[in-house]
Amino acid sequence: MARLTRMSPHPDRLLSPEPGVRERARELYQAVAQAPIISPHGHVNARMLADDEPFSDPAALLITPDHYVTRLLHGSGVPLEALGVGASGKSPPPSGAAAPRAVWRTLAENWRRFAGTPVRYWFEDTLARVFGLEAELGPASAERLYDQLAEQLARPEFRPRALLERFGVEVLATTDDPADGLEAHARLAAEGLGVRVIPTLRADAYMDPADAGWAGRLDALAEVSGVDCGSYPGLLDALRARREYFRALGATATDTGVLDAWATPLSDGQAAAIHRRALAGEVSGEEALAYRRNMLYQLGLMGAQDGLVMQLHVGVLRNHHRPTHERFGPDTGHDIPVATEFARPLRELLNAVGTSPAFRLVLFTVDETAFSREIAPLAGFYPSVYVGAPWWFLDAPAAVRRFRAAVTETAGFYKTSGFVDDTRALCSIPARHDMSRRLDARYLAELVSDHQLSEDEARVLARALVDEIPRGAFRL
Amino acid sequence: MARLTRMSPHPDRLLSPEPGVRERARELYQAVAQAPIISPHGHVNARMLADDEPFSDPAALLITPDHYVTRLLHGSGVPLEALGVGASGKSPPPSGAAAPRAVWRTLAENWRRFAGTPVRYWFEDTLARVFGLEAELGPASAERLYDQLAEQLARPEFRPRALLERFGVEVLATTDDPADGLEAHARLAAEGLGVRVIPTLRADAYMDPADAGWAGRLDALAEVSGVDCGSYPGLLDALRARREYFRALGATATDTGVLDAWATPLSDGQAAAIHRRALAGEVSGEEALAYRRNMLYQLGLMGAQDGLVMQLHVGVLRNHHRPTHERFGPDTGHDIPVATEFARPLRELLNAVGTSPAFRLVLFTVDETAFSREIAPLAGFYPSVYVGAPWWFLDAPAAVRRFRAAVTETAGFYKTSGFVDDTRALCSIPARHDMSRRLDARYLAELVSDHQLSEDEARVLARALVDEIPRGAFRL
Amino acid sequence: MARLTRMSPHPDRLLSPEPGVRERARELYQAVAQAPIISPHGHVNARMLADDEPFSDPAALLITPDHYVTRLLHGSGVPLEALGVGASGKSPPPSGAAAPRAVWRTLAENWRRFAGTPVRYWFEDTLARVFGLEAELGPASAERLYDQLAEQLARPEFRPRALLERFGVEVLATTDDPADGLEAHARLAAEGLGVRVIPTLRADAYMDPADAGWAGRLDALAEVSGVDCGSYPGLLDALRARREYFRALGATATDTGVLDAWATPLSDGQAAAIHRRALAGEVSGEEALAYRRNMLYQLGLMGAQDGLVMQLHVGVLRNHHRPTHERFGPDTGHDIPVATEFARPLRELLNAVGTSPAFRLVLFTVDETAFSREIAPLAGFYPSVYVGAPWWFLDAPAAVRRFRAAVTETAGFYKTSGFVDDTRALCSIPARHDMSRRLDARYLAELVSDHQLSEDEARVLARALVDEIPRGAFRL
Repeated sequence: MARLTRMSPHPDRLLSPEPGVRERARELYQAVAQAPIISPHGHVNARMLADDEPFSDPAALLITPDHYVTRLLHGSGVPLEALGVGASGKSPPPSGAAAPRAVWRTLAENWRRFAGTPVRYWFEDTLARVFGLEAELGPASAERLYDQLAEQLARPEFRPRALLERFGVEVLATTDDPADGLEAHARLAAEGLGVRVIPTLRADAYMDPADAGWAGRLDALAEVSGVDCGSYPGLLDALRARREYFRALGATATDTGVLDAWATPLSDGQAAAIHRRALAGEVSGEEALAYRRNMLYQLGLMGAQDGLVMQLHVGVLRNHHRPTHERFGPDTGHDIPVATEFARPLRELLNAVGTSPAFRLVLFTVDETAFSREIAPLAGFYPSVYVGAPWWFLDAPAAVRRFRAAVTETAGFYKTSGFVDDTRALCSIPARHDMSRRLDARYLAELVSDHQLSEDEARVLARALVDEIPRGAFRL
Repeated sequence: MARLTRMSPHPDRLLSPEPGVRERARELYQAVAQAPIISPHGHVNARMLADDEPFSDPAALLITPDHYVTRLLHGSGVPLEALGVGASGKSPPPSGAAAPRAVWRTLAENWRRFAGTPVRYWFEDTLARVFGLEAELGPASAERLYDQLAEQLARPEFRPRALLERFGVEVLATTDDPADGLEAHARLAAEGLGVRVIPTLRADAYMDPADAGWAGRLDALAEVSGVDCGSYPGLLDALRARREYFRALGATATDTGVLDAWATPLSDGQAAAIHRRALAGEVSGEEALAYRRNMLYQLGLMGAQDGLVMQLHVGVLRNHHRPTHERFGPDTGHDIPVATEFARPLRELLNAVGTSPAFRLVLFTVDETAFSREIAPLAGFYPSVYVGAPWWFLDAPAAVRRFRAAVTETAGFYKTSGFVDDTRALCSIPARHDMSRRLDARYLAELVSDHQLSEDEARVLARALVDEIPRGAFRL
Repeated sequence: MARLTRMSPHPDRLLSPEPGVRERARELYQAVAQAPIISPHGHVNARMLADDEPFSDPAALLITPDHYVTRLLHGSGVPLEALGVGASGKSPPPSGAAAPRAVWRTLAENWRRFAGTPVRYWFEDTLARVFGLEAELGPASAERLYDQLAEQLARPEFRPRALLERFGVEVLATTDDPADGLEAHARLAAEGLGVRVIPTLRADAYMDPADAGWAGRLDALAEVSGVDCGSYPGLLDALRARREYFRALGATATDTGVLDAWATPLSDGQAAAIHRRALAGEVSGEEALAYRRNMLYQLGLMGAQDGLVMQLHVGVLRNHHRPTHERFGPDTGHDIPVATEFARPLRELLNAVGTSPAFRLVLFTVDETAFSREIAPLAGFYPSVYVGAPWWFLDAPAAVRRFRAAVTETAGFYKTSGFVDDTRALCSIPARHDMSRRLDARYLAELVSDHQLSEDEARVLARALVDEIPRGAFRL
């Protein structure tokens, strides 16, 4: 048995400890390792690509904005200030915010805390394959690695656009507010980037009339859409107009993130009354909830009209620690999953449009019990429903393997979405897609080794999972 | 490594990719591969066996009536009409229903969608081992396979009884309405079929007084039982009488399928009042729910009296898509599992009769989180409670393996039910039981390879799991 | 392939059926196999250690008091009387209670029922490694094994203290009522046992004012603490005083076991009013629940003050079968897990003290769905929160492996608690810790074999998991 004294990145990583499976998985993987990357859902900033400025420093690129990384450091006792995390980007960073090199050193000193996590896996893969750096991160190597990274980031081939092209990304979907004018997308289209960058409309901020900023956002939406949002039908019309605008700029999908999946229609009169009361500052919690659940239903109906694929990300209790939220803003590592159901909450919507040819609904969960219990059975019957890829906390090797084992027997491969990287960390895109390809190759190899698939079928499926399947699911 | 260009049916299928485990599993499997099949729960039609007519065509045998098959085709965009699915069997098939050969071709064209599913596994096993056909299904082979199947189905050895005897089925339990006169069972007993075909009483249709057909069914039950069901005590007496009748014809068990497991007693007065109000068409949803939950409790008490094993199948939201239900009837692929609990709902019943020697309760779930959390702990304490085999969506290789891993450590092997095929697809019975034997052999081989069991013990257990354990659990 | 005709204890048990993983796991395991045992949570009786009397007989040592063992025998039809289980220890054993040798024989005759369970694993490991007995338990060997055990138990080296020292236990935490004077702990400290035996304060009995014994227990607590518990502030003060007392005798932690994790503050006035009403015998169920949930919150605040680690064991419906509870008392095998959540219930407490340096909260669950969904995400962000080891029904090989796979990707290794044996069965302590070391070695070996960790890192982690990690989590 060979000694494994260096970990990253071994060519056989994730392909199974069992030699027979590994050999088959390697072959399946190699056939798709270089396939173009289709990224139908993520959070890369289109303006960053349009501006194409160099990244300022290694910490700003790889640590500070990535709550996957800062989360576990915070959980280990490192204050967010020491990681450069600022106040919602709207004000200057809090006093005491650390300098980039100190942030990097803090990560290096705590590196052992990431053992066994996907952050560790993606990070080392990124250092090695994007930057050509193979030293293990740690106190001893921290300064040298920082210098090497900083030196590379200054070079033109490490600007955002060059990276994206080098990564072999063919399609990249961003996530955008309906009020966004999409100027960055227009510039990218005009300038002929070798990557198709398309917007995705995410209307979460317009769904909860009890939210403090709701009325102000309606004004902004009215301005950009030219449709008065002072009434409920106006808001629906404005959203419809923006969906068309997004579609014209290449969008094929929308996204929605809500605490639960209830999509329960109100009568137009009820919804309009709550809308009015909310603008008058008189909405109750119960009314706001009913309004939000009706909005989810209405977004579904819109999707059945215009054919934009509806992505649904539910079940996360956002900003669990209010003091951190107040000081540092959202997306700072304390969004916590809760138990989530789909069958009952989506029944009305699926009874209305579940078999409509234009409707498509991709279901994502952070409660993995829903995979085999509700999501796969729904996708197995409704032509509109697809099983979303493992999301967020579940986007890691062992969880991805549980996902495939949980859904394939009920929904097969062709009713799944294909991999979704869901990341704002541009440089981690290749590592994430590569991880997925390795794990799918392994899963297929296990089925072959267990005589449930032939090798020929596994080859076809491995290819479909990075090409036909995501293209089909997202109507690309 | 040998090339696996043909998949089905490999002699080592499902026995593990790990060579050491596989070798042990093969040995354990081979010792039980030919053991008689005990099928204590299923949906084969007794009249079909009594009449013993030839099957009309391959689609009617293998596709149209099997919602495991039609479900995923529908989820892939194939209308149910194109699969020959008719309107509840009560009216002629809807216009546009496809001819059998076209149905078969549709399946063949969509065969890749079943990769990784148990339907694919059972189907190929059935074609190969029941019909001797080893070609892969697909557009190229569809016509030829159809012709070969059709030709065989015309032969006497492919009539229902001959198949059942050839399969080595020793006991086959059907599922029957309490108002069923069981004439088919009586004919089978009189004619000396080499298979013990026994009825199972399923009284679901008498539990929900808000259901439109409830009153009519009470009349039918009154007629067959000779007991007036116009009152609550009358209904209980009629059910008791039918249980005795079923027992006299060989029944050892009842079955119940309800949305939740709550078995909560009402006073006789309360139940009688709801019964009266329901017959007067005045029952509320809340009353109907209380009545149903009381009926579940009463069925438990009856089991503690007469010793019929109580099977409980809970947690499925039936007929999720109402338009499909209205057009095509029930069992058309859109029954969806929901989160299910057992410890609290069954407490009253288990406090009443959980340690009564005559009472026996076999718990089935489609929410696999309940296996380790509630079902195994209940079975580990209550002498009456048994862990039911993986059911429905969970009746597939990976899910079955999760089942054993989830329950064995808490409840051992002897408090499980043994395999239950739960099928109306007669020809899939051997494939399903064979799958289970392979997976149990693999699980035992893994314990041996991990030094938690000796090989001798594993052999005894493999045999017990297909013989002593189901016979004991179902009092056969 | 070598024949495995004898099972226990094979030197490679639990180290994986895959030869490559097994070889790496063996090496990792061997490096920690002899490491001292740190047992930060358990139920060994301190008085038993202080008195150091010989154990009376094999059944009283290994069967009668261990509900892990008696549970499955009861579930197999053996009455608790036949296992010597008595009436809460407060009255003489019920008539018909069996003699020790008959109890032992009953276990031997039912031994096959434990195949695949951890009881079987621990039991055989204990017989072999503590008592040097390698015969398989069964009817044929029962008498001889009983005699051999009885003979050994009479010897000085099998008295409790000698055993504990021989086991290599370095720290042993007991679980104690706040009103306990801890005389036994004081005697052990004074007499210089080579094991650090420390108390743990468990205040469950003071949290539910609807419980029949609550008022009486307040009196006892007032007496031992010298603080009047007639008022709500008095009870809080008395608990604070006892926490200090426990700390002075070496305690580093408290424990709490409640049905749910809701920690919801009441105003002082509300809590005081409920306290008064309860003493007057007028408390409602709703008030009692609110009081209990406020007490959990208050215990959290106390922990943020005094730095005692707060262990939280939630989600068990105790004494499910009331007739057994009435006759035989608690802890008789019918405590059943229920679905459990953490994110919402603990939000108020974690918003108050979740980032306080003195606060520490270790979360245990018997609903394993919470591992990946809520516990690991909470531990990944809050510096105070740690993932508790698999508990109770989950404390078994397959469940432990699921645990590591469920939490590591989100929380890493360093936010877990290290192994906790949670046992009252003194002689099973080495077997349980050894099991954990084997399973962790296997998990690490799998990560190495999958190229997610280097061998060097795995060695460091294997050591940390039995030393630095539990010491750190429990502030030892």
